[in-house]
Amino acid sequence: MRFNKVLDDIKIYEAGKPIELVVREYGIASEDVVKLASNENPIGTSPAVAKAIVANANKAHLYPDDSMFELKNGLAQKYGVRDENIIIGAGSDQVLEFISRAVLDENSSVLMSAVTFAMYEIYAKQMGAKIIRTASYEHKYDEFMEAYRMHKPRIIYLCTPNNPTGDATSREDVLKLIDVVDKETLIVVDGAYMEYAAAKDEKYAITPNDLLGFENVIYLGTFSKAYGLGGMRVGYGIAQPELIHELYKMRPPFNISTLSLAAAIEACKDDDFVADSIALHQEQIKRYETFAEEQGFDYIESYTNFITYLFDENMDSTEISDALLKRGVIIRNLASYGMNAVRITIGTEKQNDVFFKHFLEVTA
Amino acid sequence: MRFNKVLDDIKIYEAGKPIELVVREYGIASEDVVKLASNENPIGTSPAVAKAIVANANKAHLYPDDSMFELKNGLAQKYGVRDENIIIGAGSDQVLEFISRAVLDENSSVLMSAVTFAMYEIYAKQMGAKIIRTASYEHKYDEFMEAYRMHKPRIIYLCTPNNPTGDATSREDVLKLIDVVDKETLIVVDGAYMEYAAAKDEKYAITPNDLLGFENVIYLGTFSKAYGLGGMRVGYGIAQPELIHELYKMRPPFNISTLSLAAAIEACKDDDFVADSIALHQEQIKRYETFAEEQGFDYIESYTNFITYLFDENMDSTEISDALLKRGVIIRNLASYGMNAVRITIGTEKQNDVFFKHFLEVTA
Repeated sequence: MRFNKVLDDIKIYEAGKPIELVVREYGIASEDVVKLASNENPIGTSPAVAKAIVANANKAHLYPDDSMFELKNGLAQKYGVRDENIIIGAGSDQVLEFISRAVLDENSSVLMSAVTFAMYEIYAKQMGAKIIRTASYEHKYDEFMEAYRMHKPRIIYLCTPNNPTGDATSREDVLKLIDVVDKETLIVVDGAYMEYAAAKDEKYAITPNDLLGFENVIYLGTFSKAYGLGGMRVGYGIAQPELIHELYKMRPPFNISTLSLAAAIEACKDDDFVADSIALHQEQIKRYETFAEEQGFDYIESYTNFITYLFDENMDSTEISDALLKRGVIIRNLASYGMNAVRITIGTEKQNDVFFKHFLEVTA
Repeated sequence: MRFNKVLDDIKIYEAGKPIELVVREYGIASEDVVKLASNENPIGTSPAVAKAIVANANKAHLYPDDSMFELKNGLAQKYGVRDENIIIGAGSDQVLEFISRAVLDENSSVLMSAVTFAMYEIYAKQMGAKIIRTASYEHKYDEFMEAYRMHKPRIIYLCTPNNPTGDATSREDVLKLIDVVDKETLIVVDGAYMEYAAAKDEKYAITPNDLLGFENVIYLGTFSKAYGLGGMRVGYGIAQPELIHELYKMRPPFNISTLSLAAAIEACKDDDFVADSIALHQEQIKRYETFAEEQGFDYIESYTNFITYLFDENMDSTEISDALLKRGVIIRNLASYGMNAVRITIGTEKQNDVFFKHFLEVTA
């Protein structure tokens, strides 16, 4: 069997360790595992969403409404846009995949910051495109402009707030960049964690409507984080209808499940849940900042639902992550991103207590 | 904005009309709509599966176990294969997408029968590949061999039993074809409806193990039909590990939802539900055969959970389908496949009563 050449350069993505794996590998009871690795919502599933799932549990045999009429309506109202501006993906990941497949080829390149969401690179490589990264993990205007002028990438990824680092780019800087980039380059503003940034500082709030005037810009959002639907795989892209129409050509029918659709329709109305999620987060993240200061290491100021701890040569992110894992505390080691750092999802008060306790013990 | 050239040739797929749309467009109460258009399981969702969904409804915020350890284990046991032979897709559709993206390019072609599953063509077009079809909707050995020798396609699709026609290809014919095709051509045996064919006539039963000896053959199966999980989007491919490994490079992480995973794990154990589904089907399909004979039109002998009625020039499949739709009876018109024919999913006794009644009225 012969496969396409691009496959030679692709490594298979390994997702973060699920609770089930830690249970299987280390024999820890699942209720004792604290997973702060995947930026899941620590409050859990919204009761209204869980109710919608239960109410639809006997519809698993029925295909979903592939027009996603009701969900698009909900999003259109939330953002003050129209149905035709919206495409739904199995997570905003899948919208990234549609984008990559619609515009990239083996002669193209994509531009992103030094450390950012891993799927940008993976989908670009699947299309054989070249990856260009700026020197900094922050989205620095001058670095982006220099790389843009040199490489004329087909796509520029602006992940704000940025994952896995937690920093954000201001609305002003994003608009400044959009303004000077020509229309042949697609600019993707990935706002997966935008709800947290917008709640923290209005200067970092970017809405789809800020961007809809530009034919070459798409905003991505997700129900996975502030809305608490990580497991349901529902995200969206919002852009001008012509761009959405082209992306639709890469969308498989029924790309989210009947229950994911029902859950997202309900989540979309559930502003109280989002407010509660953000309130808990804002209260608990302070503990992580204080903890780092007390322990004498650095962190990146976070505009997301996680925090990134930066270690010096006296601490090793791999050793610390591995030691925590054996105790049932799962965090994300950033060594594979070239950083001696760990990313920790801000959990519930109790989960965070467990994290601090074990962290102190393994670093003692 | 500039998009890849292949998009010029792609039309956006329109899925079958969901019940919600008929409710919205024709003002028919949703409980009065009879949908026999999408080959959904008429028994509904298995109670064991619904129970698993309810039990997991509060886990919507948690990403699934991306290794899909337990589901692969279940499938491995069912089919007597190993974990490493299996890849899970969001429906077997998604495995088709992985396959297309792993082996096709703009200089390649794919071979399929005249009338077969629409997604083969759609995914091939997304890669810019050429579509070659045999003259017959049945998978005729001589037609396939002639086209194979002439075009040397990268993929041959054998949909057995075939959708949307309902006919099947014998195990003997499938193995005969596999035997003469060289190893550079991938042969996809799509068994989405295999449970129905295997129950009807052992000669048409093909298992993954019949095919695992061939490095260039993959078997596709789904939970959407006999297992009653159409809305959950879970299917699988089974092949030699080297082939599975390459397809994995095109798989996005978390490609099925937490609840889809829980539902499929449960469905995999639920042999009684499959047996009940097939028993109802075998009893009810006889009524459709008798009805056609009484009404004086032809049908294709079916090895699936649907039946295809073939009309002569006195009957028009589009008129009949449209008239039924306005009465809340949704079936699949095959005019877009170049056939004056309709495909009807075999429903429950009561749904079938409704179909026969309205069919008689609209054709009177």
